[in-house]
Amino acid sequence: MKKQTRRKFLATTAAVTAGAAVFGLPTMQTKNKKQLVHHVFFWLKNPNSKEDLNKLLEGLRTLEKIETIRKLHIGVPASTEKRPVVDNSYSASELMFFDDLEGQAVYQDHPIHKKFIENCSHLWEKVIVYDAMEV
Amino acid sequence: MKKQTRRKFLATTAAVTAGAAVFGLPTMQTKNKKQLVHHVFFWLKNPNSKEDLNKLLEGLRTLEKIETIRKLHIGVPASTEKRPVVDNSYSASELMFFDDLEGQAVYQDHPIHKKFIENCSHLWEKVIVYDAMEV
Repeated sequence: MKKQTRRKFLATTAAVTAGAAVFGLPTMQTKNKKQLVHHVFFWLKNPNSKEDLNKLLEGLRTLEKIETIRKLHIGVPASTEKRPVVDNSYSASELMFFDDLEGQAVYQDHPIHKKFIENCSHLWEKVIVYDAMEV
Repeated sequence: MKKQTRRKFLATTAAVTAGAAVFGLPTMQTKNKKQLVHHVFFWLKNPNSKEDLNKLLEGLRTLEKIETIRKLHIGVPASTEKRPVVDNSYSASELMFFDDLEGQAVYQDHPIHKKFIENCSHLWEKVIVYDAMEV
């Protein structure tokens, strides 16, 4: 990230983050800090291939080493009741918590994340990402 | 697990909250237990109405009293980088962790959840639910 872009980004982060930011201190790890959730759903090209699913799950597990991830949940569709509103067509999901927008940006640019995409992106045909900031 | 033990286990699980683990129920609430994630995205009928959004968020906050919810994150689209894979068209999201399928079923049938649907379902035009079991 260029210096000027980064400065602007940090300013934005400070502006949109509630709670700890009010005090102007780097209290990034406080329990009450509003967290950012990053949830990604993957649809495999070969949804019936156990091998491809395992490769993807293995790749997802490498992400846990990225230092800005506060919690990582790797999942597959749960066998909850089938209802019209429930989408259980995906193959695997990755759910992460970050302290803030910057933590998520660090993750996006992280070499481990880039390596994961390089190694695994041939496996999936569709990805949907939801980023939600706690309110 | 024997039938009787299991019955007792289920009763205990339903009765305790995550905090109760501190009081000597270490086996059931261990950190390594695979958790179920329930993530719901809401699209408001009037996406530009602050009032409708606030009503929905207020309704979502009532859900935290449901005893089988281990963690609740209520969010709105985060201002992360806009990319084709990112869906930021929803109005609000609710993310919950449960210990198991049963915890999620208790939530679905809970009077507080039913009251929420009764009070708020006129606000939204679309809902997508993803249930993911940790692997």
